[in-house]
Amino acid sequence: MTSIREALEELRQGKRDVDSVMGIISKGYDDIGCAKIDTSRERRAGCPEVILCEGKAMDQIKGIVGVMMAHGSNILATRASREAYEAIREVCPMARYNELARTVSIERKRIERPSTYIAIVTAGTSDLPVAEEALETAQILGNDVRLIPDVGVAGIHRLMDSIDEIRSARVVIVIAGMEGALASVVGGLVDRPVIAVPTSVGYGASFGGLSALLSMLNTCANGVGVVNIDNGFGAGFLASLINRL
Amino acid sequence: MTSIREALEELRQGKRDVDSVMGIISKGYDDIGCAKIDTSRERRAGCPEVILCEGKAMDQIKGIVGVMMAHGSNILATRASREAYEAIREVCPMARYNELARTVSIERKRIERPSTYIAIVTAGTSDLPVAEEALETAQILGNDVRLIPDVGVAGIHRLMDSIDEIRSARVVIVIAGMEGALASVVGGLVDRPVIAVPTSVGYGASFGGLSALLSMLNTCANGVGVVNIDNGFGAGFLASLINRL
Amino acid sequence: MTSIREALEELRQGKRDVDSVMGIISKGYDDIGCAKIDTSRERRAGCPEVILCEGKAMDQIKGIVGVMMAHGSNILATRASREAYEAIREVCPMARYNELARTVSIERKRIERPSTYIAIVTAGTSDLPVAEEALETAQILGNDVRLIPDVGVAGIHRLMDSIDEIRSARVVIVIAGMEGALASVVGGLVDRPVIAVPTSVGYGASFGGLSALLSMLNTCANGVGVVNIDNGFGAGFLASLINRL
Amino acid sequence: MTSIREALEELRQGKRDVDSVMGIISKGYDDIGCAKIDTSRERRAGCPEVILCEGKAMDQIKGIVGVMMAHGSNILATRASREAYEAIREVCPMARYNELARTVSIERKRIERPSTYIAIVTAGTSDLPVAEEALETAQILGNDVRLIPDVGVAGIHRLMDSIDEIRSARVVIVIAGMEGALASVVGGLVDRPVIAVPTSVGYGASFGGLSALLSMLNTCANGVGVVNIDNGFGAGFLASLINRL
Amino acid sequence: MTSIREALEELRQGKRDVDSVMGIISKGYDDIGCAKIDTSRERRAGCPEVILCEGKAMDQIKGIVGVMMAHGSNILATRASREAYEAIREVCPMARYNELARTVSIERKRIERPSTYIAIVTAGTSDLPVAEEALETAQILGNDVRLIPDVGVAGIHRLMDSIDEIRSARVVIVIAGMEGALASVVGGLVDRPVIAVPTSVGYGASFGGLSALLSMLNTCANGVGVVNIDNGFGAGFLASLINRL
Amino acid sequence: MTSIREALEELRQGKRDVDSVMGIISKGYDDIGCAKIDTSRERRAGCPEVILCEGKAMDQIKGIVGVMMAHGSNILATRASREAYEAIREVCPMARYNELARTVSIERKRIERPSTYIAIVTAGTSDLPVAEEALETAQILGNDVRLIPDVGVAGIHRLMDSIDEIRSARVVIVIAGMEGALASVVGGLVDRPVIAVPTSVGYGASFGGLSALLSMLNTCANGVGVVNIDNGFGAGFLASLINRL
Amino acid sequence: MTSIREALEELRQGKRDVDSVMGIISKGYDDIGCAKIDTSRERRAGCPEVILCEGKAMDQIKGIVGVMMAHGSNILATRASREAYEAIREVCPMARYNELARTVSIERKRIERPSTYIAIVTAGTSDLPVAEEALETAQILGNDVRLIPDVGVAGIHRLMDSIDEIRSARVVIVIAGMEGALASVVGGLVDRPVIAVPTSVGYGASFGGLSALLSMLNTCANGVGVVNIDNGFGAGFLASLINRL
Amino acid sequence: MTSIREALEELRQGKRDVDSVMGIISKGYDDIGCAKIDTSRERRAGCPEVILCEGKAMDQIKGIVGVMMAHGSNILATRASREAYEAIREVCPMARYNELARTVSIERKRIERPSTYIAIVTAGTSDLPVAEEALETAQILGNDVRLIPDVGVAGIHRLMDSIDEIRSARVVIVIAGMEGALASVVGGLVDRPVIAVPTSVGYGASFGGLSALLSMLNTCANGVGVVNIDNGFGAGFLASLINRL
Repeated sequence: MTSIREALEELRQGKRDVDSVMGIISKGYDDIGCAKIDTSRERRAGCPEVILCEGKAMDQIKGIVGVMMAHGSNILATRASREAYEAIREVCPMARYNELARTVSIERKRIERPSTYIAIVTAGTSDLPVAEEALETAQILGNDVRLIPDVGVAGIHRLMDSIDEIRSARVVIVIAGMEGALASVVGGLVDRPVIAVPTSVGYGASFGGLSALLSMLNTCANGVGVVNIDNGFGAGFLASLINRL
Repeated sequence: MTSIREALEELRQGKRDVDSVMGIISKGYDDIGCAKIDTSRERRAGCPEVILCEGKAMDQIKGIVGVMMAHGSNILATRASREAYEAIREVCPMARYNELARTVSIERKRIERPSTYIAIVTAGTSDLPVAEEALETAQILGNDVRLIPDVGVAGIHRLMDSIDEIRSARVVIVIAGMEGALASVVGGLVDRPVIAVPTSVGYGASFGGLSALLSMLNTCANGVGVVNIDNGFGAGFLASLINRL
Repeated sequence: MTSIREALEELRQGKRDVDSVMGIISKGYDDIGCAKIDTSRERRAGCPEVILCEGKAMDQIKGIVGVMMAHGSNILATRASREAYEAIREVCPMARYNELARTVSIERKRIERPSTYIAIVTAGTSDLPVAEEALETAQILGNDVRLIPDVGVAGIHRLMDSIDEIRSARVVIVIAGMEGALASVVGGLVDRPVIAVPTSVGYGASFGGLSALLSMLNTCANGVGVVNIDNGFGAGFLASLINRL
Repeated sequence: MTSIREALEELRQGKRDVDSVMGIISKGYDDIGCAKIDTSRERRAGCPEVILCEGKAMDQIKGIVGVMMAHGSNILATRASREAYEAIREVCPMARYNELARTVSIERKRIERPSTYIAIVTAGTSDLPVAEEALETAQILGNDVRLIPDVGVAGIHRLMDSIDEIRSARVVIVIAGMEGALASVVGGLVDRPVIAVPTSVGYGASFGGLSALLSMLNTCANGVGVVNIDNGFGAGFLASLINRL
Repeated sequence: MTSIREALEELRQGKRDVDSVMGIISKGYDDIGCAKIDTSRERRAGCPEVILCEGKAMDQIKGIVGVMMAHGSNILATRASREAYEAIREVCPMARYNELARTVSIERKRIERPSTYIAIVTAGTSDLPVAEEALETAQILGNDVRLIPDVGVAGIHRLMDSIDEIRSARVVIVIAGMEGALASVVGGLVDRPVIAVPTSVGYGASFGGLSALLSMLNTCANGVGVVNIDNGFGAGFLASLINRL
Repeated sequence: MTSIREALEELRQGKRDVDSVMGIISKGYDDIGCAKIDTSRERRAGCPEVILCEGKAMDQIKGIVGVMMAHGSNILATRASREAYEAIREVCPMARYNELARTVSIERKRIERPSTYIAIVTAGTSDLPVAEEALETAQILGNDVRLIPDVGVAGIHRLMDSIDEIRSARVVIVIAGMEGALASVVGGLVDRPVIAVPTSVGYGASFGGLSALLSMLNTCANGVGVVNIDNGFGAGFLASLINRL
Repeated sequence: MTSIREALEELRQGKRDVDSVMGIISKGYDDIGCAKIDTSRERRAGCPEVILCEGKAMDQIKGIVGVMMAHGSNILATRASREAYEAIREVCPMARYNELARTVSIERKRIERPSTYIAIVTAGTSDLPVAEEALETAQILGNDVRLIPDVGVAGIHRLMDSIDEIRSARVVIVIAGMEGALASVVGGLVDRPVIAVPTSVGYGASFGGLSALLSMLNTCANGVGVVNIDNGFGAGFLASLINRL
Repeated sequence: MTSIREALEELRQGKRDVDSVMGIISKGYDDIGCAKIDTSRERRAGCPEVILCEGKAMDQIKGIVGVMMAHGSNILATRASREAYEAIREVCPMARYNELARTVSIERKRIERPSTYIAIVTAGTSDLPVAEEALETAQILGNDVRLIPDVGVAGIHRLMDSIDEIRSARVVIVIAGMEGALASVVGGLVDRPVIAVPTSVGYGASFGGLSALLSMLNTCANGVGVVNIDNGFGAGFLASLINRL
């Protein structure tokens, strides 16, 4: 229940010995009361902990960012309202906000990028927020990205025109709402792993993205993995893992 | 509660007068106890009543076919087991069975066919039973049909190869299970009314055709109407109404 | 990634040759960054692209309308808030707003209308917004429409009183919420294609239109195709395709 | 844990005194181990306990019937397979089986019937099993019933032809599968309580009767109460309560 | 398309003859453009049309009330916001508002009441708005009502204390949210028809009333009919039909 | 229909005799019109009635608190807005508000606490409001609680670090949203009863907590009971029953 | 990948040394290829692993039982067909089969039982198989059990007659299908932890137990935890943990 | 509509010229009537078409295998009954059947394998059929596989014991039914792409795999993509794409 910062302060004041501080540091997380920040995730799972702002108080967000700043990591916060961004900026003025994506990025060390790239393909213009979240995620994790928006199946010649650029990617993210057919069509045309992201774009019987989700899970194409509805972050993360293999 | 046949018999025997029989005939249906066969549907809704065999006893089916024979109509029975077919053949030896479609057809007068045709397109080989039901329905109602099977989006070049034949149809039926993406792709490529039939082909999260159904309802393409899961009959009927306009 | 307008400008300035511009034009879409406007849809699918405003930023909408204006098409924007309408009016002062339907229409060339008409029938007064969307769609695509509101099955004599006008239409749109029974009743009374539109009118176990949607898909009447919940546009479009065959 | 029969036997043998037996009898149920037969239900809720055979072993059914026989009640068993009927007949040879309804009836005292009647209306022939269950239930509880089958909305003139007979009933049961529209149409035409029974007749998106159930719950007509899918017994019971008020 | 008022005005001005007006009146509804007010419902279905305010514009509501006033009926408007009430009061200052029930009542002629009464029972205090809607409905239709609130099964002795008053009613309405168990318990204790109303009171897995709805449909008690979630009006109406038989 | 306070007042004024007041008191509840406050619940079910504020008017809440104050019980109000808290404070200034938990507690007599404790474990920081509700509930019912937040399975070493503290509890509450996996992992590691609380934390296909709920119901671990989504109160109550056995 | 038996055999033959065998034993599971039998579960989670027979081949079941026999544990196999029982009997002739419960029990050492008991209460006779599974589980884990069947709320006096026996239990299991109301009624009457088990008994809108499950999760009573549909084993296990605290 | 074999035969007989045959071959599929076998998929999407046997007749399967044999591909047939295997063996005696996986493999040319491997991890023994399907798929596509069964979270030490082998894989497939928690736990422990496969193992509220599916989609771990319920093939295919990058 002692945070690393408190432990170090106590060490400096002679109230705690080195072994005890070592024990706290080696736990692999930093306990700040409301949260236990996972400081070993980067080593263990390939990337520092990412902050999902939704459902967290401004103070909690600031506290978590502050600690992560102290640990020196790059930081990504998702589902961040403008208010959350302002709060983070108080702790770290260099934070960058992507309003469409609702992400805050703090890139303190640039990660080396492989020569291959990730293609992000969207069915419509309304899918762009999810695409931007995937893009921000993939970039901060050290990847080049190419964004190919608005190539949905209602006008399939638009897709065909970009198909070479898609085929040359190492991994492809397909983002679509409504009936989500684009994932199957792309999946049938490329020999690369496809990550499908259903979006909540649509109305009526789209049931908040359920229609696109079921479509993608039932795809007749091969080589398609699906993430949660509107989960641009999850797609960007998985794509990064694959692109950086 | 008197059937037309009983009324006529009573007339012949002098037990009933002509006006009373006229009254029974002019009701627009023939009451045989378990069923009230709709004898005015052809005039009113463009086609005689069709017999849905599922959930009916063999005796009921035979009784209904017998009465419809007496009225001189063409007859179509759907969801007919082989046992139902055998029962119908006792009443009408000329009945023809399509095992794949599970339909029994009795074509007593050939309806004149318009010069245009209906295209029936399927995503996979497993969708053929539904396609055959649509085909049998459209044919007995007086339409030429062209069947283009197995052109699902996992290999979209197969569809492109047949697209001219599809575009030349007056109305197109698209039949697909799993994610049902074919309806959207075809809908984006033709300027004809498209009738989409989701099928229960698939497993897991296809939930008995729900996935394809939602896909088709949420299609980003224009000009698509949807019928019930596996409802080849309904699609064939609606296509016939449009083709014969 | 070059829009047609940019390409033409470069041609005028001598920075691009004619062949290159021809290549860009012949792609069949106009790439304006956030969207790829489908300029070949009218030829391919019978109607120019329609703008679904929901989920799009005001700037995106204005951009898309501007380009479509340049291409000379009639324009229809659906699910348009008053704010979206104001944005469009900046680009095109002649734009007309139907507040109930939430559509913006820009009719630059009047399409010749066939002599037949489309009947739009609603179960209740609360279904009128969906009916108006269908009506605006059908009209801008070149169809005469007759609107018959509030003839739901709780007082079926109201329907019977208008049945001749409905039967004389070439195609019928039936719009109903709650239990959606009107589609079946109309379907049983006419020999024309019926397009059924479930609406989200209702409460409790209507589950946002699910009840009416299932009703219409399971109709015991023949010749009924269903579109998405509240999808007046889709119904108007499909009806137009049929009416103009 | 002593059944009434055991208690009486012990009384006869002098092993138990009268007060103790009175105590057991006055509990209002007869405890036979696997079941506690509710002997006071007739007084309390207007009808003796009814045996739902589904999920019970043959021995349990026989045991329960045997005890109820001893109590002198009329007996109704529902969802009874032929095997269950044979088991009951061993205990009571006068038991009568309605194969369609899957009910076993033992009518030991005829209940006086009111002069009014219950109308049972079905949409199709396939709804007859549920109608027969309702009919058997209403009859054994002391009601006259009129059955009007196969008047579904696809041919609404059949309903209109019987509407006077329906309107003259004291209470109306409407039984329909698929989209269940008949309940709304009847509800709009009569000023009597309507009990709606959705059936599992249908396929695809009828989801085992869910479609009809939602329809009936969302009816735009007034005066309609709904019971469980395929619950002919429940409808017959409720109708009897109302008819016998 | 001519309203009765317009027809009478034209008759007065000599622009229309008596037969023509008779024809308009005898249609059984009054066509005011956005609505066809069902003037024969009282005769046909036992009660004048009721106005569901939800989804209607203020002008439409005022128009409909105005016409119904002219026809002399008692008027009930449900799901009425305060704004709707103010609108109605402009047309009819004697209108009375029940804020909890969200009903507006205009009682112009008092209907004779039978000597029996309707019991309305609620599980909790939060179910009172639905109970009040049922109560207002039953009263304007001419019934005495007794309201017994907050007797849910978590403290079943409260119910037992009122059970005699409930048993003496001619028909019982049970209103409950959460798990809806009260309907089954009451159903097992009375020999009267029970109308069960699930409410949306609850959270989490109550799914907006679905839990209580399913409970009531699956009740192990006999003699229970169910209406839509939160449908106090429907329950009051059906109870009135039964109480006034 | 007489509240206990009214009865006592009438006794004091000589308008009511002692026996009559005894009868009112011995009913086991206090009838204040809109509510019947269950005064025997503490004796019968181990705890006084708890006030669910959601869906109740401020006046009703104040009335209920006032009566319960008179009965001398500890009081817990859940799902209390700040407005509800202010209302309660008018009646009882010593009321304490936990903003995160949205509970109001009035602890008038301290209940003796057993030496064992309840462990409350959360998967993430966003689950804290539910955890606080459980904590407040358990404490007012007389239990020591240890809260271990943010030990979700994405960083399972955090859980392992606290596992001894969890194992030493007498009963464990596990609170998790999203996929709810923590309940299974904890369930597999301890030999104590585990109460699992799914939360609505998540988005997309979490469907408001359904995902976590199903996870917990289907857990492969043994010894896990589940309560409603976000039902911290229910978990705290059940844990108290077990801890105080 | 070496099973403990193989390791011991190799030790006996001098092919393996003691330390290596110690390592294999201390892993806390026995790896037999298709399964890793959890030999430390008894110490860790209070009970040896239980065999869920469903989905396992006969050979796998025999293999697992054989190894567990060697480890000396009591053994419980659930969801066991008669065929599975016969297979187990080949390995262990003393195995006992409860056909109703579908359990196989092998009790090799009798566990000392606490003086308190578990009450198992069922709503109907059809719930007995689930009750028997709970009973067998609780007994082999060392508990006394009292079974109180068929006290569902349709005849609540049956429950009241047994309420003292239920209240005297240390923990109560309530098993009910259909609407599952019994859990709420019992929960309101006792001050003991209640474990609610929804069953799939019912039809139509019970949706395989979903209705009872939702009821129990939404119970208005306090102190109720829920396990999966038909999960008698889970309830018996949790009850044992609580009873043996 | 001419198959390649027919075309070649006609060429041999001089009935067709070389150019015409070239046209048929270059279509990229072989049209055999009921199916259009996608002969270009290997080049286009990295693997020849795979035969889903479910829903296909024996003759269709044989026909498709025959043609694919002629094209020289490796062949994989999934969801193959033993009957389907026998049918295939008539065409190709070297076909190999994996009864657990229900796959038929015909490996005509061995594909070179990369040095990395795919780890397949299952929660329980009952998940093995899905694991075997994934394994067969991955192997025929040219991958080394390590299978680690029965390491579900109820005994997490079993997983920890194999974690190094899992971490060393290039890509990990996690297969789990019930609550599917294993995917999250593994996802939190490795820095490799994880493909999660929900299975239909479970009962009650697992709803045929829905519970595990939702769990996996809502995982709090990063880097997880999900495929359809029981879709071992899809997971094996996607894993192969990633492993062979």
